[in-house]
Amino acid sequence: MERMKSTLAITVVLLLSFLSQAAETANLQKWQKGRGWGWVWGKDDEIGSLNEMTDASRLAALRSVQQGKTYDLGVTYDRNSYKWPGHNPGEIISFRTPEGVKRQGDLPAIIEKNSSKTAWHSCAVFISDNVATQIDGLGHVTKGNDDHWYNGFRERDWGGNWGIRKCDATTIRLIVARGVMIDVATYKGKDALDSSYEITPQDLKGALEKQQTQLRPGDVVLIRSGTLRYWGETGNDTEGKIKTHDSAGINLDSAKWLVEQNGAMLIGSDTSGLEYLPRDEDTDAYRAKYKSFIPVHDYLLVEQGVHIGEFHNLEALAKDRVYEFCYICSTAKIKGTVAGFTLRPIALK
Amino acid sequence: MERMKSTLAITVVLLLSFLSQAAETANLQKWQKGRGWGWVWGKDDEIGSLNEMTDASRLAALRSVQQGKTYDLGVTYDRNSYKWPGHNPGEIISFRTPEGVKRQGDLPAIIEKNSSKTAWHSCAVFISDNVATQIDGLGHVTKGNDDHWYNGFRERDWGGNWGIRKCDATTIRLIVARGVMIDVATYKGKDALDSSYEITPQDLKGALEKQQTQLRPGDVVLIRSGTLRYWGETGNDTEGKIKTHDSAGINLDSAKWLVEQNGAMLIGSDTSGLEYLPRDEDTDAYRAKYKSFIPVHDYLLVEQGVHIGEFHNLEALAKDRVYEFCYICSTAKIKGTVAGFTLRPIALK
Amino acid sequence: MERMKSTLAITVVLLLSFLSQAAETANLQKWQKGRGWGWVWGKDDEIGSLNEMTDASRLAALRSVQQGKTYDLGVTYDRNSYKWPGHNPGEIISFRTPEGVKRQGDLPAIIEKNSSKTAWHSCAVFISDNVATQIDGLGHVTKGNDDHWYNGFRERDWGGNWGIRKCDATTIRLIVARGVMIDVATYKGKDALDSSYEITPQDLKGALEKQQTQLRPGDVVLIRSGTLRYWGETGNDTEGKIKTHDSAGINLDSAKWLVEQNGAMLIGSDTSGLEYLPRDEDTDAYRAKYKSFIPVHDYLLVEQGVHIGEFHNLEALAKDRVYEFCYICSTAKIKGTVAGFTLRPIALK
Amino acid sequence: MERMKSTLAITVVLLLSFLSQAAETANLQKWQKGRGWGWVWGKDDEIGSLNEMTDASRLAALRSVQQGKTYDLGVTYDRNSYKWPGHNPGEIISFRTPEGVKRQGDLPAIIEKNSSKTAWHSCAVFISDNVATQIDGLGHVTKGNDDHWYNGFRERDWGGNWGIRKCDATTIRLIVARGVMIDVATYKGKDALDSSYEITPQDLKGALEKQQTQLRPGDVVLIRSGTLRYWGETGNDTEGKIKTHDSAGINLDSAKWLVEQNGAMLIGSDTSGLEYLPRDEDTDAYRAKYKSFIPVHDYLLVEQGVHIGEFHNLEALAKDRVYEFCYICSTAKIKGTVAGFTLRPIALK
Repeated sequence: MERMKSTLAITVVLLLSFLSQAAETANLQKWQKGRGWGWVWGKDDEIGSLNEMTDASRLAALRSVQQGKTYDLGVTYDRNSYKWPGHNPGEIISFRTPEGVKRQGDLPAIIEKNSSKTAWHSCAVFISDNVATQIDGLGHVTKGNDDHWYNGFRERDWGGNWGIRKCDATTIRLIVARGVMIDVATYKGKDALDSSYEITPQDLKGALEKQQTQLRPGDVVLIRSGTLRYWGETGNDTEGKIKTHDSAGINLDSAKWLVEQNGAMLIGSDTSGLEYLPRDEDTDAYRAKYKSFIPVHDYLLVEQGVHIGEFHNLEALAKDRVYEFCYICSTAKIKGTVAGFTLRPIALK
Repeated sequence: MERMKSTLAITVVLLLSFLSQAAETANLQKWQKGRGWGWVWGKDDEIGSLNEMTDASRLAALRSVQQGKTYDLGVTYDRNSYKWPGHNPGEIISFRTPEGVKRQGDLPAIIEKNSSKTAWHSCAVFISDNVATQIDGLGHVTKGNDDHWYNGFRERDWGGNWGIRKCDATTIRLIVARGVMIDVATYKGKDALDSSYEITPQDLKGALEKQQTQLRPGDVVLIRSGTLRYWGETGNDTEGKIKTHDSAGINLDSAKWLVEQNGAMLIGSDTSGLEYLPRDEDTDAYRAKYKSFIPVHDYLLVEQGVHIGEFHNLEALAKDRVYEFCYICSTAKIKGTVAGFTLRPIALK
Repeated sequence: MERMKSTLAITVVLLLSFLSQAAETANLQKWQKGRGWGWVWGKDDEIGSLNEMTDASRLAALRSVQQGKTYDLGVTYDRNSYKWPGHNPGEIISFRTPEGVKRQGDLPAIIEKNSSKTAWHSCAVFISDNVATQIDGLGHVTKGNDDHWYNGFRERDWGGNWGIRKCDATTIRLIVARGVMIDVATYKGKDALDSSYEITPQDLKGALEKQQTQLRPGDVVLIRSGTLRYWGETGNDTEGKIKTHDSAGINLDSAKWLVEQNGAMLIGSDTSGLEYLPRDEDTDAYRAKYKSFIPVHDYLLVEQGVHIGEFHNLEALAKDRVYEFCYICSTAKIKGTVAGFTLRPIALK
Repeated sequence: MERMKSTLAITVVLLLSFLSQAAETANLQKWQKGRGWGWVWGKDDEIGSLNEMTDASRLAALRSVQQGKTYDLGVTYDRNSYKWPGHNPGEIISFRTPEGVKRQGDLPAIIEKNSSKTAWHSCAVFISDNVATQIDGLGHVTKGNDDHWYNGFRERDWGGNWGIRKCDATTIRLIVARGVMIDVATYKGKDALDSSYEITPQDLKGALEKQQTQLRPGDVVLIRSGTLRYWGETGNDTEGKIKTHDSAGINLDSAKWLVEQNGAMLIGSDTSGLEYLPRDEDTDAYRAKYKSFIPVHDYLLVEQGVHIGEFHNLEALAKDRVYEFCYICSTAKIKGTVAGFTLRPIALK
């Protein structure tokens, strides 16, 4: 029986392999080589390139899984976790505790006639929607004097007091797609890329070649700088290692190469902001050139409608040399939030 | 080419079907028919029945997907969403806005030399870890004068100010498993089960038979009361419909039947608490009998180590008569929290 | 010795009485009978009519105290306290507790070598700046398409993400002034004024005459509707009594009479909003007439620069028939907040 | 007329001076020289030494005011303000704004028929009850394995989830009392006392003598280290000056001398914790000697029932050489909180 199952399993794998090869040649719906996407999905669209997912593309991604092994790409967040200082701090606070419920005595109806002495814990959480493992929504970044975001949604029309009213995180589709990890750190022979290291298209090509991986249109592309090797349990960056390496990232050319030449549907990394941040002494020239302090965000989120993944933990994938996988992620369904946060994306191989 | 692909696809489906049949006969590691689990995973275990997942079980669940269609089982949360009144309220508040950043002027270094007028949104979120679509962690509920939870972890040892220090939500494994939906509401001919309707094992058996579904050990079992047909956009229960139907749920016998006879690895529903809540006039007798106000929680979380799913939106599955699927869920990785909350579990068919 | 002290004390009281009579005839600096104030304090002014306080006016108010008895005009706030539903809810949560500090073990350096087993409590507070006993700042209410507040400060110039940047609560001067309570409820023979009772200048004059009190320019005027007799311990309005009576208040004529004819420097009451709110059926006509849903707020805060006091507990003053007193209040010094909240103003007689 | 008023005023002042001299010899109710207070106010008492205030004592303090000039002893708090790192961070966030209300459109009934375009601001505040200018309540600090605080209230009896249920900040009486400032910094010839400077009784006596001030039983005693000269606008301690000087404070001998020999009813300072904190290298010996990391807190709050004032801004008093004044303070009336915070105590002279 076991041998029979093995034989069948091998047959299935071979057939699936064939089918998925076929799938990868399929054209995406709106992507154009050399141009990427842009505001091509209609004036009400809040989804961007994630519109490219279809039953067929998801099925192909799922069918590529051959082992059933999971990798948790999320990092653990607590009050001390490293974050960009411009975001609000966080506290997870015991709100109800067994002792507290019994002492407080505010719910006698629940506590009485309870000879098993049952009680409960719950927590109140004060948190930013831009911490730990994230997917930036298409309304995170704005441009222009009219403060518009993806697809031309303007603050004066779609802002509000309780987050954004177009492209909030509830519009980020459930993501099931082929994932590719590009291990630039290993390619460059580094534990983690140097501070303010600028990842170029040449680096991406070199790393892909070294690891013998090919990109396909519609991929979730995750780029490894090695920064998260320093996250530890909860990213308490007392020695400044995360902060140091966090400024390594892709430049605008790389973002364009991934989107326009390769059809990357979502681009992420293991840093807090994906993109290269210049050294202090280079900042003025950089901003003068790109007219923005975050040109890659502008390009991907606002112009192309391509979501950005941040602080994805790629350490275990790198260790196991897993470069292709099925990427699955769903963001918290909290209205108004601008990003999926404290995520645990799954890589399945 | 297309015909060839179709033929191959059919072959694959048939083979996969055979393989998954084989998989379902596989024994779980620790589950015993007639007893379920209990504290069988070692004294340090924080995971409970989710330990039963293996590469093989995940692969079988993934391979069962034949179409690539996704169902989002999460409901959208905002400040007005229905929740148990004992949990803290929530606010999602615009923390940074394009206009606000520019007016506040607190970050000149970021705003200067920014001729594209790039800015951003972020939100501060004050929230309970027990709202919207949830998976209760094994430390949510406690029993006894020593306030212990699953596996004997005691408040005096593992409590704290910032949530629980054993069995917090970061210990809830990435879940990829066969899911089964039992549509009790349809079986009983109701839009939604009556207030305080007690779902018995007979109801579960009857519904399973009607929908021709078979449970297998290791399943994620989701029970539909129909309550979430009233969620609307964000669960603003102005007419009290959610509150009314939310008291329908399984009784202790049903929980035992699912775990001890059927090996259910996780049990969920479309209500805020899964279990039957008696009418006011029946409350005293109920508590006297069961020694607890939430005996199903006691049994599943504390005694059996079986996680509970809450407010899972099963409406679309019911409409499409999808009773078997691949269930995938990952909870926010926030240390100390006692439950996964505002989730978007995925059902894949 | 005691008799000598008594004699002297009487002499002092008489002399003080003469002095304070003299003081009351003193002209205010900018107030004009028939016009009140307005934007008369210079283009940078954030203080409004509270500019009228001087050393002399404070001294006179202090000198009027003859007994040293204090009345606490604040009501106690907790998570269940009645508030206008448009404000955010509140939670006071134990953040550090002796048991929690010891169990959490996050501060070993503090806990070690501590044979007295010293520990501490602290709370995290999530709260609105518009709850319980308040003084509305001059930036609370805005008017016009340019969203300007007192003195013409505009949102586009002085808004921000973290509250307002002109006229925030830190600009509310320490208040030491003559206070007068006008007990309209007693005058009208009511425990509390009826729902949507409209307090007219005639009511104010009648009540003042009945209680034999005279207003003087520069007074803090507090108007009693009787609503706070229903506050109980923490304003948990389960029976809806506070909500019912909270709509009684002064109309615009009364506000004008107090400011323009009498020089009231601050006007408060024992309701959440001071002003009359019409019944549902009268709302449309009311708004059409006044062009605002809160014309008294518009008039006092925006046009006149007169602060508003809310939820001042006047029950003990009424019981003791104390109509004149020294009013002392200082608001929390939290930058950006738009009102002083959870205050305990002091009435001294 | 003016001359007549002046003559009378002088007479009053002289008479008041005589009366207040008489008042100061009055015995306190429970204080004993050489012993102070302790748990002398009955087993239910939550007030401690503030019980000593009487109408007469308040009247005397008020009558001592000769000028009507106010000093605001509070410092301004915002998200960047220096605080002890063990307390939770804070955010003041614009919750409703004129633009936001109009865009969000959640309250059409309020916004419609509003041709004046009236709208409003409010803020949501997340804050610690131990920040900026404070008065520690008698339940802030606990001792012993039973975690008891003042008067023997124990955590197991009077703890809870939402702050403390005995001696919370709502029990801190309205304070109107004679205040004395002891300017130790000036006495020692320093801008601010050195880091970890230990203020001894000899320093206090020397400073009092230099400034020719006499303590009287029942005084609020405020000790100046000079630390708050570095607060600036909001205490953003980027250069570490506040942190450096904040460790200067009174030692246990000084606390005892103030309470037991002088009847100080409340003791405060311009640092975050009043008491001397040893240098790192002295910490072990210090704790071994005193059995606590905060022996002055233990002594004052737990043992004596004497409240502690923190971060009182004494700079203007020092500049004007005002050593005696009427001290007036009322704390926010928020149930469960353990301290009055973000206060603006008033010094009147």
